[in-house]
This record gives sequence, C-alpha cells and structure tokens, in this order.
Amino acid sequence: MKQEPATLLIIGGVAGGASAAARARRHSETTRIILLERGPDVSFANCGLPYHIGGDIPDRADLAIQTPESLRAMLNLDVRTLTEAIGIDRAKKEVRVRSLTDGSESSIAYDKLILAPGASPLRPPLPGIDSPLVHTLRNLQDMDRIKAAASNVSHVAIIGAGFIGLEMAEQLHAIGKQVSVIELQPQVLPQLDAEMVRQLEITLRDKGIELILGDGIDGFETTPDGIAAKLKSGRNLDTGLVILSIGVRPESGLAKDAGLDLGPRGHIKVDSHQLTNDPDIYAVGDVCETEDPILGKRAAIPLGGPANRQGRTAADHIFLGGKALPYPGSIGTAIVRVFDQAAGIAGWSETRLKMEGVAYQTVTVNGASHASYFPGAETITLKLLWSPEDGRVLGAQASGKDGVDKRLDVIATALRGRLTIDDLAHLELAYAPPFGNAKDVINVAGFAAGNIRDGLLVPVASLSGAGPQIVDVRPAATAAKRPVPGAKNIPLPDLRARLGELDRSQPVFTVCQMGKTSYFAARILANHGFDARSILGGAHHQL
Amino acid sequence: MKQEPATLLIIGGVAGGASAAARARRHSETTRIILLERGPDVSFANCGLPYHIGGDIPDRADLAIQTPESLRAMLNLDVRTLTEAIGIDRAKKEVRVRSLTDGSESSIAYDKLILAPGASPLRPPLPGIDSPLVHTLRNLQDMDRIKAAASNVSHVAIIGAGFIGLEMAEQLHAIGKQVSVIELQPQVLPQLDAEMVRQLEITLRDKGIELILGDGIDGFETTPDGIAAKLKSGRNLDTGLVILSIGVRPESGLAKDAGLDLGPRGHIKVDSHQLTNDPDIYAVGDVCETEDPILGKRAAIPLGGPANRQGRTAADHIFLGGKALPYPGSIGTAIVRVFDQAAGIAGWSETRLKMEGVAYQTVTVNGASHASYFPGAETITLKLLWSPEDGRVLGAQASGKDGVDKRLDVIATALRGRLTIDDLAHLELAYAPPFGNAKDVINVAGFAAGNIRDGLLVPVASLSGAGPQIVDVRPAATAAKRPVPGAKNIPLPDLRARLGELDRSQPVFTVCQMGKTSYFAARILANHGFDARSILGGAHHQL
Repeated sequence: MKQEPATLLIIGGVAGGASAAARARRHSETTRIILLERGPDVSFANCGLPYHIGGDIPDRADLAIQTPESLRAMLNLDVRTLTEAIGIDRAKKEVRVRSLTDGSESSIAYDKLILAPGASPLRPPLPGIDSPLVHTLRNLQDMDRIKAAASNVSHVAIIGAGFIGLEMAEQLHAIGKQVSVIELQPQVLPQLDAEMVRQLEITLRDKGIELILGDGIDGFETTPDGIAAKLKSGRNLDTGLVILSIGVRPESGLAKDAGLDLGPRGHIKVDSHQLTNDPDIYAVGDVCETEDPILGKRAAIPLGGPANRQGRTAADHIFLGGKALPYPGSIGTAIVRVFDQAAGIAGWSETRLKMEGVAYQTVTVNGASHASYFPGAETITLKLLWSPEDGRVLGAQASGKDGVDKRLDVIATALRGRLTIDDLAHLELAYAPPFGNAKDVINVAGFAAGNIRDGLLVPVASLSGAGPQIVDVRPAATAAKRPVPGAKNIPLPDLRARLGELDRSQPVFTVCQMGKTSYFAARILANHGFDARSILGGAHHQL
Repeated sequence: MKQEPATLLIIGGVAGGASAAARARRHSETTRIILLERGPDVSFANCGLPYHIGGDIPDRADLAIQTPESLRAMLNLDVRTLTEAIGIDRAKKEVRVRSLTDGSESSIAYDKLILAPGASPLRPPLPGIDSPLVHTLRNLQDMDRIKAAASNVSHVAIIGAGFIGLEMAEQLHAIGKQVSVIELQPQVLPQLDAEMVRQLEITLRDKGIELILGDGIDGFETTPDGIAAKLKSGRNLDTGLVILSIGVRPESGLAKDAGLDLGPRGHIKVDSHQLTNDPDIYAVGDVCETEDPILGKRAAIPLGGPANRQGRTAADHIFLGGKALPYPGSIGTAIVRVFDQAAGIAGWSETRLKMEGVAYQTVTVNGASHASYFPGAETITLKLLWSPEDGRVLGAQASGKDGVDKRLDVIATALRGRLTIDDLAHLELAYAPPFGNAKDVINVAGFAAGNIRDGLLVPVASLSGAGPQIVDVRPAATAAKRPVPGAKNIPLPDLRARLGELDRSQPVFTVCQMGKTSYFAARILANHGFDARSILGGAHHQL
C-alpha cells in the first residue's frame, strides 16, 4: 500500500521544498531525501527580510529558521546548498547539477522529483538596470546588500507599491531614509481596490514618504552622487539606491527545458496533487499554477502559506498515492502593515471581478475593532463582494489600525466554506469588550449586503455618484466642520419633521460620517415614499 | 405583501429588544413601536459593566449606548422606562403594565408582541443571601452599588468563576481589592475543559487572587466587620462584599403565566423565526431557547450577540413574513480576558460531548500568535474537537496572551460552514510577520487532526496517560532544567542513532516542550517499527 521511493529529490530548499522534505520524512525513514538549494541558506524566513533592514528583527540569525545542519540532524536530509540544478533528463530520471563553489557538474538520479525553485523578482530589460545600485530582495544576501547600501545613502527609490514595496518603504523610513515610491498604477497596493488604500496613502504621505503614482520607470542613469530613475512622466528622480519590487517571475526555465507543461504566464501546470504532466515530477510554491476555488479559474499566488501546504500535499501524494488529499486551491489572502495601519484582501477584488466580467454586488461598511465603549477601539473599513446569484462571498478587503487580520481570517474561512452574505450576518464571533462587538463589522457587512439584496438599502458607491439632492444627516456641528459639497444638512433626529423640505420628484442621496446613519435616514425616506439612496462608507474616507 | 402591524409592543429594552425595535423601524414608519423597560435605562452596554468598576471604562456615560430620548429621536419609538409588564392577555392581545414610579396599572394593546426580558442572575435561597452585602451584576444600578460598596472594603468574595466572575476578579484586583473566587467545579471557567484553563488559574493566583475550587456555598452570615461566606467544605470566608455570579435564570414567568411553551430549563420555546406557540408573540435573547446548529440540539446561550441578531430576526418575520430568513442557531462563542491572558471557546467542549455521549476526537497544539521570528509573538494553545465520522469540527478552545480572539473567530466561522479538519489544514489565513504565520496554529491543528485520523499520529492526551517507557526528546539542557518524571532524555537529533536503547516490546511515549518535536520523534520510531505515541501539547502546561 505505502509507496516509499528510494530517492526523493527536491529542487529548492525554502518554503515549499523544505515543507515537502519534512513531510516526506514523516512518511518514511528509508527514502533518501536530497534537498538541492542554489543559495547558501535553506528554509529561511523570506517574509521577514524587510524587517531586519528596518530593525524590527534585530538579530539576523532569527531569520534562519533552519540551517542545513539542523535539517540533517532533525530530518536526516541530504542537504546540498550552493548547488544549482541545470537540467532534467526525464527519460533517465536524472537531474544534472552544478556546484556553485567549484563549478563541477554531476548527475543525481531520482525516483520522485519535486520542483520548488520559487520565483525571482522581475528585472525588466531597461537601460541601466544592471547598475549595482538597483537591488531586488529575495534572500538573505540581497537583504545584507540592501542594508549595507542603505547605510550610505539618504534617499531610496522603491519601484512598485505592492506588499513588499510598502514594507520596504516603512522599514527604510524607520532607519531615517527619505523614501520615494513609484507605482505604475494610480494607487498603492494595486491588488486592492483604489478606495480601500486611500488611508494607507494618506498615512505614507503623512510620514513624509513621497508617492509617485500612475508613473512608470523608463530606465536608470548613473549620476555623480548615485543614480537617477528616469520616469515615464519625464521626471528624473535622483536617489542613492533603487529597490525594484514590481512582481516576480516563476523560475520555470528548467521545467520548460524538460518539456513540462506551463501555463500562459510561465507557471508549471499541476493537478490537484501538485503533479505535473510527468507522473514522477511535482511542482510546488511560486513556480506553479493552482486553482482559484472561488470561481474555478487558474491562479498563481506567490505566497508562503500556499507554498508550504503545497509542499506537504506533494509529499503526501508521493507516499500515500490515491489516499492523499488534494490541494484545495488558493484564495490569495494577503495583508500588509504600513506604520500604524494595516490593509489586506481575501479572494477577489472589484477590479479583478470587473476585468473578468464576473457579476457581483458590493458594500463597504465601517465598524469598531472592538466594543466602541471600551478604550482603544479603532475604525475598520470592510468592503465585501458577493455573487448576486446566490449571495456567495467572492472576496473582501479590510483596512484600519487594529483587527484587520482577524476580519480577513474570518473572510478567508468563509470563502473556504463557500459561505453567503446571510452566513456572515449570523457569524457568532468572540465578543467581550476588549476583543469584539455584539454586532461585529463582519455581521454588519452581512446585514448591509442582505439589505441591498432585499431592496432595503439602495447603495451609492461614493459621494461622486450622488445626484443633486444630497442630504447630510450628521449632527449640525459635524456637518459644519467638514461639509459635504452640495448637501443640505438635516440631522437624522429632525428628518421626519422636515420631510417637506425635500423634493419627492427626484432621488434623495443620504450621507453621514460612517455610512450607517445615512442608511437609517434612507429607510425613513423610503418608508415615506421617497426614492432614497445611501452613500456607502460615509464621508469618513471621502472628504 | 408587506405586513405592517399597527402596534408592535416590545418587552425589554436592552440587547434583543432594542435591536428588534430598531430593525422594525427600518421596515415601517407607520407601525407604532412601544418599548417597555422595567429599569431606568435602555440599550446599555451590559457586557461593559465590570470594566467601569475597575476603571477601564472611566466614564459611566460611555455605557449608555442609547437613552430613551435618543431612541425616540432616532427611531420614533414610544419608550417607557420604569414600566413593568405584569401580565399578557393573549385572547385580548393586551399586556398589563405597572408604572414603577407611581404604581399605577394600565393595559397596552398589541398586534405583535416581542418578549425580550432577558435573564436574571441566580440567587439560590441560601441562608443570609438577602444581606445587602450580597450583590449581583445585571444593570447600571447594580454596578453603581457594587462600585460604592467596594470602595469601603478590602476584600471581595466572588461566587462563581465563569466569564463574569473572572472579569469581576480582574477588575476588583485592579482597584486594589483582595479577591477570593469560589467555584463549585474544580476549575475556573467550567464552560471550558479543565486543562485549557490551567494557565488562567496560574495567572490569577500569581496576581494574588485566591481561587477556592471544588467548593460551594452554603450560606452567608453577618459579622461585626462584614459578612462571612460559609463554604460547603466547612470554611468560613470573612469578606466585606459578596458578588454572586453563578449563572442566570430566564425571566420567563410572564410567558409561563400566559401559557407559552417553555423548555426543560424554563426558557421560552421558539421556532427558527423566534416565534412562540402564539402566532403573534415572539421571544428573543436570554429568555428563549435556540438550536445548536452543530449537533441539532436545543440550547440556551445567554449572550449579547445572539440576542441582538434574534431581535433582528423576529422583526424581519413580523414585517416580511415568509420572506424573512430564519435564525441559524447559536454555537456559544465566548471569550474572557483575565489580566494579560485570554481564553475562550466556540462550539462544544470535550466535557459536554462526553456528557451527551457524542463520539469525538481531539487534539491540542501550540503555536505562535504571529511569526515566531517577529518580536512580540506569544504562544497560543488550541484544542480542537471533531467528529470521527466525517471530520467535521465540533468545537475548539484557545488560550494565550495574544490572538486568541482571532482563532476563535476562525473556528466560529468554520462551525457555521460545517468545515472539516481538512478544511482547517488548508485555511489560507492572512500572513505577514506582524500578523500571522505561514502555517498558523489553526492549520497545524488541522494537520495534527488529519494525522490522527490517518494513523500518522497516535496521541496521548497528557503526561498522566503515558506508560512506563517515556522518551523526552527535548535538548538535554531543557530536559535537565524541567525533567519529565520517569522519562529518558534522547534529544531528537540523536534518536536515530540511539534506537537500540529502547525496548521494542512495549509502547514508547514521546514528549517534548510544545507537542511538535514529540510527534516528529514518534514518526521516526513508528517508521522504525516501534509502537510510538506522542503526548499532546507537550510538557509546556503539564510540568
């Protein structure tokens, strides 16, 4: 029953490869497990690299979760670092390897092979990109180089405002650098919808970080004092150091040369057991495609969690065969901390749903991170997307100073369970004043979504979508302080008595601070026969 | 289509009643909504009461979320505080009420009636229980009385170590009181399994709080300096103030007198729309029974979240009829903070499953609250219970200093989605070093549960269940510092070379610090032909 290959060869010794090796050893003490790694380190904390540069993780050794020696001792692995795989002979079941210490070449025979080479940072062929002042961040050596280089400069330019770009911006700011972030899209974190990152952008700029959005990079030029980044807008940005964080490319060259099937963007194609089109070769982690379980489409999610669990899945299939459980796909949960803010996503964004032409409905609500009457509560903004067909959740985004990770985890779990907006409404989340709410922002999002479906809430996505008759239902003092342009102020308690001031022949758009009172007001108006629509999320992020 | 009763009468103006009133008003501007409340306050933050006593919530006004005036202004409610319902005439559809200000009586006709009277703290008929020094905590007035009384005493005795009892212990300690907590069960928080509250008990005792466990109360006696609590053990505990927090009793007398059906413990029976056996009377909140959606049994969960959502459910059914969505039941998610610790539960405990004779399997794992290489990570202990039949999660408990609420919320969502241990293994939770882990403790619990099902992990619940041949696989220095009684120390890296020292004719029990390395060791032993069993959760909480 149990299958124990004589030799399991794993190419790549970080997240997916190391997890596969560990799981394989739990299945068998007899299989020879060889772990090849091109770099000097195995199983290091790649997600922690920015935080050593900024000093949050002061001890570099903390990033080396395992060493070749510890893996040998604990798992009886044959670990070969500084060893590059340069070819796969599928017919002979051999991998050709080259030592990066002495250049010698040799072949290693395998019974089963797992490819876990990861993905490398994109370095487009731009003029000047090979300058030693243009860095990418993938491993401990990159980190050491950036840290050393940063110590000598006052300004750093970060190209790409994705998760790693923003982490680097925060960390370089923390060690006193002036930082400019250049992003081709007109927003930071293009994985999220634009309005959900506005607060992050405000925070970054408040810290003195320059955001250059909607601008790209044409090349680099050496200057007497450092390097100039030449932007598409024509601007020349003088800096001492450039960090490129514009995405990654799967390291699938070896697989391609060996004739393994690749997807449209160069990722290795695998089945649900991580098996390639060769019955003895698996692929895991950033190098491979997976399935998006929400809409059933192919997806490539270069993140540590999926890589680890895919490594485990491949090892299980090697040793258990048909008894092994499949990998259920990746939903792309991600989060970033930027100073005192956090923002993240699980599942699909509105931008992606639109691009794919998938029908959706959406609502944005604000809520407190824990009971608002208990000290320390912070506002969380939650955007929910669901299918109008069956109410199934398609994705969500959250931002705020506290509790963002918790709400994303709830949504990630809901996505795994294919829960609906009505399920969210009735989630029974942990409530005590220091920790949560009797009606959590997740419940409130479910309530609001159900109200939209049932016609109780006619939503308008933002102030810019509001027609001429706008009613600001905030207290007079609040409305006077930060007025909504073009709005008439009728505080909610006065609304019933002042209905006569409104024009019944055209829609009334209600607005408040957080998007809740405006809903209450719209219900009053609708129940009095008005065509009433509520502006989602309130004036909070929009003024 | 839409049903709009002329008069909706609601008895009880706090969580469930206030939610029902608010939701009802969203449905209709024409229905007259009368909210009766026996006390002077409506919609106050009852879960926050202990925190004003201890000073975490310094401003009492913060606990008054709404006032009768604000409810009138916002919701056009007819709010009548200090008004007690004393009888229901179902035939006439009238409620008899008495004013607590002047004692006058009158009747209010209703078209629809919602009962939301809540539950009152238990006060068993013990000798001396009517002493003015014996307090319970239900409303703002109780809180004021306790706060005033506490200011004059040095010692407080709390009877009952449930959620409120422990919150009160923490808060009274915070204002310098000596505190004794008396609990009939041999553990604090009897809602949780005993081993999951050991750390809380240690923390409480470290703070100087006296825990008197496995002891009950026989009565009270006035003393020259205060009051003596007479314990079943014979001990007389002298104190200045007693707080009774031994549970609650549904306030279902009015319903009973009106001939409404009650459950075995006196809760009002309702259907999934919160409707009683009278088609015009609903019941919501602590006074009613609900369904446990995990095992389909009847349950009574006196918590704020369910009360709020049941109020909403009843209002929806009144106005939408058959189009309204049912209440999906309550799973009993609960959490408590005790100093720097938190502990909580979602779903069923092992104790309850045993009592009900439900088949289950269980595993306990330890993990970090976020990436262990990032500063501030704390250990979370997670106990998972699932059905051996289909792997479906039945419940979980968590404890630790950080991130306990998040893991409970994930489990609560998994319970709502009827997820299995394999789903937990593959949850894609938000991971960045400050927030989570590439393999979160939830994933690890799923892995371990799957390993138990698949025979890869043969678990032993605790050290006390281990047979004579125990191998401690921790590093020699750790093992020497806190030795496991009767264990032979063979550090994991040496295990393969020292197999000859073990007796193959009897089981080997492996133990480590956190329960992970012992699993690794057991796999090595099993793959070498030993009958190897791993002690769950490690020596961490057991030495």
